[in-house]
Amino acid sequence: MPLTAMMKPSPKSRSELAPLLAFGAHPDDIEFGCGGVIAKETRAGRAAHFVTCSRGEAASHGTPKQRVAESKKSAALLGATVEFVEFNGDAHLEVRAAHAIKLAGLIRRAKPGIVLAPSLVENQHPDHAKLGQFVRDACRLARYGGIKELRRAQSHAIEQLIYYAVTAEAEPANITPVLIDVSAPDVLKAWTSAMEAHASQMSARNYVELQLTRARLRGLRAGTGHVIALFPNDPLILDSLAHMSRGARRF
Amino acid sequence: MPLTAMMKPSPKSRSELAPLLAFGAHPDDIEFGCGGVIAKETRAGRAAHFVTCSRGEAASHGTPKQRVAESKKSAALLGATVEFVEFNGDAHLEVRAAHAIKLAGLIRRAKPGIVLAPSLVENQHPDHAKLGQFVRDACRLARYGGIKELRRAQSHAIEQLIYYAVTAEAEPANITPVLIDVSAPDVLKAWTSAMEAHASQMSARNYVELQLTRARLRGLRAGTGHVIALFPNDPLILDSLAHMSRGARRF
Amino acid sequence: MPLTAMMKPSPKSRSELAPLLAFGAHPDDIEFGCGGVIAKETRAGRAAHFVTCSRGEAASHGTPKQRVAESKKSAALLGATVEFVEFNGDAHLEVRAAHAIKLAGLIRRAKPGIVLAPSLVENQHPDHAKLGQFVRDACRLARYGGIKELRRAQSHAIEQLIYYAVTAEAEPANITPVLIDVSAPDVLKAWTSAMEAHASQMSARNYVELQLTRARLRGLRAGTGHVIALFPNDPLILDSLAHMSRGARRF
Amino acid sequence: MPLTAMMKPSPKSRSELAPLLAFGAHPDDIEFGCGGVIAKETRAGRAAHFVTCSRGEAASHGTPKQRVAESKKSAALLGATVEFVEFNGDAHLEVRAAHAIKLAGLIRRAKPGIVLAPSLVENQHPDHAKLGQFVRDACRLARYGGIKELRRAQSHAIEQLIYYAVTAEAEPANITPVLIDVSAPDVLKAWTSAMEAHASQMSARNYVELQLTRARLRGLRAGTGHVIALFPNDPLILDSLAHMSRGARRF
Amino acid sequence: MPLTAMMKPSPKSRSELAPLLAFGAHPDDIEFGCGGVIAKETRAGRAAHFVTCSRGEAASHGTPKQRVAESKKSAALLGATVEFVEFNGDAHLEVRAAHAIKLAGLIRRAKPGIVLAPSLVENQHPDHAKLGQFVRDACRLARYGGIKELRRAQSHAIEQLIYYAVTAEAEPANITPVLIDVSAPDVLKAWTSAMEAHASQMSARNYVELQLTRARLRGLRAGTGHVIALFPNDPLILDSLAHMSRGARRF
Amino acid sequence: MPLTAMMKPSPKSRSELAPLLAFGAHPDDIEFGCGGVIAKETRAGRAAHFVTCSRGEAASHGTPKQRVAESKKSAALLGATVEFVEFNGDAHLEVRAAHAIKLAGLIRRAKPGIVLAPSLVENQHPDHAKLGQFVRDACRLARYGGIKELRRAQSHAIEQLIYYAVTAEAEPANITPVLIDVSAPDVLKAWTSAMEAHASQMSARNYVELQLTRARLRGLRAGTGHVIALFPNDPLILDSLAHMSRGARRF
Repeated sequence: MPLTAMMKPSPKSRSELAPLLAFGAHPDDIEFGCGGVIAKETRAGRAAHFVTCSRGEAASHGTPKQRVAESKKSAALLGATVEFVEFNGDAHLEVRAAHAIKLAGLIRRAKPGIVLAPSLVENQHPDHAKLGQFVRDACRLARYGGIKELRRAQSHAIEQLIYYAVTAEAEPANITPVLIDVSAPDVLKAWTSAMEAHASQMSARNYVELQLTRARLRGLRAGTGHVIALFPNDPLILDSLAHMSRGARRF
Repeated sequence: MPLTAMMKPSPKSRSELAPLLAFGAHPDDIEFGCGGVIAKETRAGRAAHFVTCSRGEAASHGTPKQRVAESKKSAALLGATVEFVEFNGDAHLEVRAAHAIKLAGLIRRAKPGIVLAPSLVENQHPDHAKLGQFVRDACRLARYGGIKELRRAQSHAIEQLIYYAVTAEAEPANITPVLIDVSAPDVLKAWTSAMEAHASQMSARNYVELQLTRARLRGLRAGTGHVIALFPNDPLILDSLAHMSRGARRF
Repeated sequence: MPLTAMMKPSPKSRSELAPLLAFGAHPDDIEFGCGGVIAKETRAGRAAHFVTCSRGEAASHGTPKQRVAESKKSAALLGATVEFVEFNGDAHLEVRAAHAIKLAGLIRRAKPGIVLAPSLVENQHPDHAKLGQFVRDACRLARYGGIKELRRAQSHAIEQLIYYAVTAEAEPANITPVLIDVSAPDVLKAWTSAMEAHASQMSARNYVELQLTRARLRGLRAGTGHVIALFPNDPLILDSLAHMSRGARRF
Repeated sequence: MPLTAMMKPSPKSRSELAPLLAFGAHPDDIEFGCGGVIAKETRAGRAAHFVTCSRGEAASHGTPKQRVAESKKSAALLGATVEFVEFNGDAHLEVRAAHAIKLAGLIRRAKPGIVLAPSLVENQHPDHAKLGQFVRDACRLARYGGIKELRRAQSHAIEQLIYYAVTAEAEPANITPVLIDVSAPDVLKAWTSAMEAHASQMSARNYVELQLTRARLRGLRAGTGHVIALFPNDPLILDSLAHMSRGARRF
Repeated sequence: MPLTAMMKPSPKSRSELAPLLAFGAHPDDIEFGCGGVIAKETRAGRAAHFVTCSRGEAASHGTPKQRVAESKKSAALLGATVEFVEFNGDAHLEVRAAHAIKLAGLIRRAKPGIVLAPSLVENQHPDHAKLGQFVRDACRLARYGGIKELRRAQSHAIEQLIYYAVTAEAEPANITPVLIDVSAPDVLKAWTSAMEAHASQMSARNYVELQLTRARLRGLRAGTGHVIALFPNDPLILDSLAHMSRGARRF
Repeated sequence: MPLTAMMKPSPKSRSELAPLLAFGAHPDDIEFGCGGVIAKETRAGRAAHFVTCSRGEAASHGTPKQRVAESKKSAALLGATVEFVEFNGDAHLEVRAAHAIKLAGLIRRAKPGIVLAPSLVENQHPDHAKLGQFVRDACRLARYGGIKELRRAQSHAIEQLIYYAVTAEAEPANITPVLIDVSAPDVLKAWTSAMEAHASQMSARNYVELQLTRARLRGLRAGTGHVIALFPNDPLILDSLAHMSRGARRF
């Protein structure tokens, strides 16, 4: 019996898995940046909820109505639910205290263990890094007891804030990534389908090929199929070296 | 039943844990740098072996004979075995291909999963970074099939190379650490005893207080007791976000 | 007569020491981040004034009224005065030009030599880095002659802007720190008392132990008692190598 | 009476200034890299000694005999003495333990407070970084009591190791510099003369103009005349914020 | 016939050179930061247009009216045109979505190939980095088809965004510079004249000497006269190694 | 007529292109790391010569005799010549002055403009970074007039030293890459064939797929086919912004 098998949570633990909350600036960001991880987690029994902060109305392709429909279909393919929250609209995000407080309220309502947000690297779509910044702030504010706008919701401490990179350029250079293997055929298929569900975005650039090539390169480097890199906001505490025994290099 | 408890390997898996191989430049480096992690791993059933590359004969205090005796006592307190290998002596280490090949031979013999080595940060005792460098090289050479000096030993691929930092200055700035909680009373006690077993080194500087203060500061930051930071040579592949749910920050 | 003693300003120079101006986002930030340095400077005859930009009303513990009272008591223990300036309130700070101009006005009034501000590291309480950013801007604006909001106050050029880190995570990785020894018993005692004066914050986390452990670790590394790290915004110009003769490493 | 004046060591302290020991790979490295600082220190009463590790025999211009003569003349102009030590010759330096031990012996003999060495940046003349590396190692070995080759010399703990950059490319990016003002006319003149004393090197490239332009640019940025940047191996411990009051930026 | 000569665009290509669009926060920023490059490009037949985002009304010297007149004269000396756009005024810039959208509209109108903007380094005049940030955002928004405020202007994809550094402190450490030789006498003269045209700024600090010293130091390092460093937002794609054959180091 | 076409050297310039000299530690390193660039350059008329520093005798697959034969075939497919130089053998490289001097002699003989070497990143096969280090040193030594071992060969100044990365892990983080488009069908085919010519290495890992995936990911990010990243040792001097007009991001 291999060690990694032994490490997996047993079936009865599924109900105890705290839900995952993922934030995206545009209807397809979460799917393109880390959809394979979402598919893997929901298949393992974890609830996943998406909060999307625009309807993609500044993009060159797709109407807001189409984008919302595509987004709901895509989230369903990943086993997740999705809701839309407005912050002045696509291409209009700003880092404002009120935005962070509003997201903190959503965190208090969803009570997630892990929060996923776009990375803070600034050389990407301006909305991505800005959203990442106020999600990070929101994770802290969710715990503080005295914020008057949030007094009706019980304060909540998340476990970890983890960044995903919508594009290769958005991968932070100052955080060692943690890699998640998404090679299982059903996971890879769900991820691909979820990306393709954003049909209005398929005409322009090779977005799906780009993401699969990124994941394949990580996979080839690690001697496996496809791998997605995530970037934790803070160092991990692991209970044992056993969890450190698989690395991105094949010695 | 908490999730972290469920993640622990079950007792019957102990025999399957690949042994841990730790390298040190001087008789007390492993103990001071990551003794608490060793204690925790051996208590969890993993075999640990130390390879020490000098008898500390350049130090201001302690004879080589004393240092070897202290080292054996200390390793035993941590549940580990120890052997001594010479590379021209204390304060005389150099980065040489022959040294890496010699260590690769030891790796082939011990067949470890995880290898621990001093960090590569150069602003520390010159022997530490130099040893780290040729341990890293040795981990690769252990796998290559055509090295003539090693032809009699079967090639071996380790799982991960992980660095420890003998001092705070030796913590690499370019690797996000992974934290191991060593707060359990028996672990902390074994670590402290193992450090104190190097009695000849106790006269000069507050080495034990220094290490415990380092670990306590990491622990306070993470909301627990004592924590040791390790630095993997390559990114980790984790099987699930469940292993990422405990972070160094208390949100 | 030791050299460091000779370097100290003589008593009659005290009246010539330009006052120190320290900015904090919350009532206890200055004390926790660099209270020991303040105590040392005021004991050496330098005037110190704190500008605190909220009453801590978003915190889980303590009312604004309590916080202000604690803050005044704490500042007095450090030999400093304190005033409160509002920028939309605790957890509501934003980087706005008007905020920087307002602080520039305070700088023109106080005419400090050295300004202390929270570090710019973003992975900390959102108010800290934001305040640091507009203090930095304010230090520049204080000198510019044409800012219309400030025309009634004479422009003022500070000597140095120095950052303190409220927590270990907030220590900037891209600035080599400068260390200040705060081991003198009266200094250490004043610092500890000033932190404990924030009684409403003592219930939750081990904040005082955390700061003293940070300072003790720095002290142990340098072969002394307790040390606080500061981070100058710009390189220092020193008049002689004599001032460089004490370093953080004991060779 | 200005504060900086008060900080200066008084004349009677001169005898107490520990000597300065500077290492160079080639006959003109110290002069080009930090000659102005040497001139300022010797004028303040500090003894300075140069150890040069080749006779420049690999250079395109100048014979070893000429280079030694130029070097002696140049050192004298700076108020320093010079000796030559061989490590296989110009362009043949290697990082060897025996070299570090040999230099450690020289350190034990000279008993310096401050040691100056070429920076560790690798993208410069190969001898420079290699020498910097074994000077750093030597500074540690000088203190260790048990090194058999050095048993006849009393161990010595230096105060600080400080790097100079022979060229702009050699300035380390990971150490915040400390700036020394060398604008005083006699200091600037001594430095210029010392560089020009290396007459055999004047034909090829504009070395003197290069160094003066570097120092002038640093000076212009700081609002003064000429400034040389130095790079301490370890953070400075300063006794007071008074020493931090002059910075590289004119606010 | 030297290779670099062969690489130059032939005269008939001039009409095909896409115009250059440069943004500055204050009337003299572009000239001081990269005026020599502008002069060189306009002499090679490229059209250049400046957008200046204040009239310098917060500066200690010069009235807005004077500054505008100086700016027009200076731009003409460089062969460029200039227009003024207001964003709340000098020392009042903020990173706002509306500002980026407004600049995106200017980009759509001017249809530049290359856009020049002040670098993003934060430790400089607060307006510089803030402008750089929203120029970067604007370059992306100029291409997006659905931004409602911009619907009347055709979307435009620029070729490259390149940063200039107004001061040495503003040079980004995380981008390898690309160097442009501005040693040709007419280029150097045009640049110097353009800087001196800002007569109101000449009284205070040695700004012209500072810029020429910066460029001379870069030139000396590369074995030529004067050189200006630019910092591309994204890696260059070059068609051949032939374009890489001249480097900043003289081997 | 597009600008990039105009920039290309005209056919008659081919004889004037200085030859390219590429160094590899093992028989397939150059091909895997930058074979597409070699193919493109030789097709443009530049001579290319490979110096390989082992026969791959430490690898798990292929005899030295096979490796040499494969190497010659592969070089021919790229339009290059190849020679073998021994430095103690595969997996036995060390950074020694004598090695750098030996390579400097080869540089003097070949008189290249551009030199290609494996990157200096240490976390790769130990031979790669070590070879990169002494190639860098060799490029400098080739110019120095007084090195006695090289007196019979005329000194030679190369134009640029450029690193290639054999694997993705070997890409330097501190140098902004320069990208070369290798999408032309004949170039891509020549590169693929050259990699496949190392038939003995095809059995074990997906090396060809790995390299093509790396190049495809770079290509997708830049909106083209396949792209190889190179890393210049020193900043480029470009003659015009025209050469900077194509970037790695499609705005």
